Amino acid sequence: MPGEFDFIRWIRSATPAAVGVPVGPGDDCAVITSPAGPLLVTTDVLTEGVDFLLAECGYRAVGRKAMAVNLSDIAAMAGTPVAAVVGVVFPNRAADPEELHLGLREVADAFDCPIVGGDTNSWAGGLVVSVTVFGTMKPGRKPVLRSGAKPGDRIFVTGPCGGSIRGRHLSPVPRLKEADALADFVDLHAMIDISDGLSKDLSHILEESACGAVLFAERIPIHPDAMELAKSSGNTPLAHALGDGEDFELIFTVSADDAAKLRQSPPVPVFKIGECVDGGLWLEEAGKRTPLAPTGWAHDIR
Amino acid sequence: MPGEFDFIRWIRSATPAAVGVPVGPGDDCAVITSPAGPLLVTTDVLTEGVDFLLAECGYRAVGRKAMAVNLSDIAAMAGTPVAAVVGVVFPNRAADPEELHLGLREVADAFDCPIVGGDTNSWAGGLVVSVTVFGTMKPGRKPVLRSGAKPGDRIFVTGPCGGSIRGRHLSPVPRLKEADALADFVDLHAMIDISDGLSKDLSHILEESACGAVLFAERIPIHPDAMELAKSSGNTPLAHALGDGEDFELIFTVSADDAAKLRQSPPVPVFKIGECVDGGLWLEEAGKRTPLAPTGWAHDIR
Repeated sequence: MPGEFDFIRWIRSATPAAVGVPVGPGDDCAVITSPAGPLLVTTDVLTEGVDFLLAECGYRAVGRKAMAVNLSDIAAMAGTPVAAVVGVVFPNRAADPEELHLGLREVADAFDCPIVGGDTNSWAGGLVVSVTVFGTMKPGRKPVLRSGAKPGDRIFVTGPCGGSIRGRHLSPVPRLKEADALADFVDLHAMIDISDGLSKDLSHILEESACGAVLFAERIPIHPDAMELAKSSGNTPLAHALGDGEDFELIFTVSADDAAKLRQSPPVPVFKIGECVDGGLWLEEAGKRTPLAPTGWAHDIR
Repeated sequence: MPGEFDFIRWIRSATPAAVGVPVGPGDDCAVITSPAGPLLVTTDVLTEGVDFLLAECGYRAVGRKAMAVNLSDIAAMAGTPVAAVVGVVFPNRAADPEELHLGLREVADAFDCPIVGGDTNSWAGGLVVSVTVFGTMKPGRKPVLRSGAKPGDRIFVTGPCGGSIRGRHLSPVPRLKEADALADFVDLHAMIDISDGLSKDLSHILEESACGAVLFAERIPIHPDAMELAKSSGNTPLAHALGDGEDFELIFTVSADDAAKLRQSPPVPVFKIGECVDGGLWLEEAGKRTPLAPTGWAHDIR
């Protein structure tokens, strides 16, 4: 049965070149050509029981997450959000539009992204929240795609990863300011936000860029949540950092020269975690390279 | 419990004037100010069991309807669609992304509206399809809002109404060409598409425009589906035309002079059904005016 990848690929394959610049099927945003410059569009659907447990987290947290994950996609293109629209299907049993709205607004306001419209429905089923955000690029800045990584590039991440399920996945901070500062400072070759998992999302970059990568195990910043989780999960903290997902940090690649600039005076905290190579995905640990299978969320339709 | 109206009102009340022109809480599209002119955005969420019966109509029809109702909202502003994004939650039991995609594409292609992105999810629940369409205005043309009707305006509809539940509601034709031709020909004071019901949607115009209307019972074009339905429903064909909804025809108002122009040489078929007055909603039948309670879909969250 076809998964998300196919669905999105069909969609993108049908987009006239005049409308959008060529983007990969998995780029974080679609890019539309307009007289005012490139327009970014992204949409994410959050589903009860899959993306959140409503009874545990409540409406406000759902609102926060739904807005944040979309803004994170704008960040991954180094874009600036302009506005959002929201579609909601409320469960009859427990609709709380006000709390949902407060959560959406909290995050939207923090990043100057007004919610300009929406639609609601209700049914006997669970809660579904669909947010669409559009954005623009600062004058002269091009959208950062997944397809620009080159062998020799250095790979960075904006923060520690793993264990987000302990709570962080509900209130991610979209790295808009970080992406903006980085795009002003260096030439970002490729970028993506971590939703599926560090190794999985990096593999999306590699796929679109037709290159490989080696990750340095000791350099990967591991979140305390991953340490905590590893105590009972049977997995290592590193495995959690590589595969848990929903960290919503940014992975990006830059030239060796720009990596040196970042090392000298980083405009925001960044962690160098690896380098792009000709092919494959590798983990280097204590001087030894072994193949790394990307782990993380798989978008199959089950 | 608050209904859709409140949710959308909250949303709109939070929109900075710099971002959007002042539109009513129920306008068909949000209007965003951009360097390239006004940008229209609309989103509609279709929910299994509420907007369609998947087992009866199949995925392709759902795709068609989901795209058409959004394009209809662009038509109601006299806008031109630019692109669409789609969010879907598939039921695990029976996902058919390809059929859904074909239905979406069929309508999108017919109106030159490429689908540029999307997101999918899956769960044990029912099918949810959320479509967001954005559009622009032809140079020099302003978005037609609901708030521009004036006493003395003539009220028109673009086609016969009622009984759409017999099947038409699944394959509405967005009146984009009609709206475009009308906007080129006359000064459209107010416009809306019929989703909730002729009388209900007209009442949205009256509310936003702070005026009233009288409808001429004999002039309201009644669809054969309404006649057929009336045979068994216990309602009159007129009641079906006034309250069934999902006709996706356009209701609009123009000055008396423009009404005369339309009578002389209509660029597309239009039916004059009434006039705007100072207050109230009235039905005139055989020369007698009686108050008319708007009937149609109520957006309560039940």
